Amino acid sequence: MEGRDYLRIFTLAGAVGVTAFVGVYGALKFTGYGKINHTIAKHEEKVKTVIDIEELGDVTAFCRCWRSGKVFPYCDGSHIKHNKSTGDNVAPIIMNRRTETS
Amino acid sequence: MEGRDYLRIFTLAGAVGVTAFVGVYGALKFTGYGKINHTIAKHEEKVKTVIDIEELGDVTAFCRCWRSGKVFPYCDGSHIKHNKSTGDNVAPIIMNRRTETS
Ligand code: FES
Ligand code: FES
Repeated sequence: MEGRDYLRIFTLAGAVGVTAFVGVYGALKFTGYGKINHTIAKHEEKVKTVIDIEELGDVTAFCRCWRSGKVFPYCDGSHIKHNKSTGDNVAPIIMNRRTETS
Repeated sequence: MEGRDYLRIFTLAGAVGVTAFVGVYGALKFTGYGKINHTIAKHEEKVKTVIDIEELGDVTAFCRCWRSGKVFPYCDGSHIKHNKSTGDNVAPIIMNRRTETS
């Protein structure tokens, strides 16, 4: 190979490297890489939820997957779809009140 | 360009494409892309937690970020680090019992 060929190869390698970096970085940022919550109250700095124990019913499922729809902070079953599509194993936390029969 | 040049370009493009796909796909799988829970009870099909309301104290913070350490399902504050490093905004769900003074 001549010097010109080496120059071409390095230019090409550099272009591929930069393009790959920008593309992958952009794609990851775009898909919210690393984030858990993609949709819920993203304008809030922190989505903290406070629940009054006195107002709980006998059984209440609270969402821990951040995929629940309008009923968040309650679980609407969306964790099932999330688990299926990603291979994850998340599920809600359930507040359970002892009743006479249980 | 000659036919041979086109062949080279397509071969190169194909090789770059395949390499990029395998590399990025592998990296994403390796880092658990899309999953929320990376560490907690990964041998279990589903990490569902059931809490007895009667056993709750006055204020209890439960983890919704899946980053809490040994105290999971309780929050140990690890969501703060997660939010900082990813730009996320998750926080615990808190069970609050009304007390005489509040
Ligand atoms: S919908 Fe989020 S845990 Fe069920
Ligand atoms: S450690 Fe997970 S919500 Fe605080």
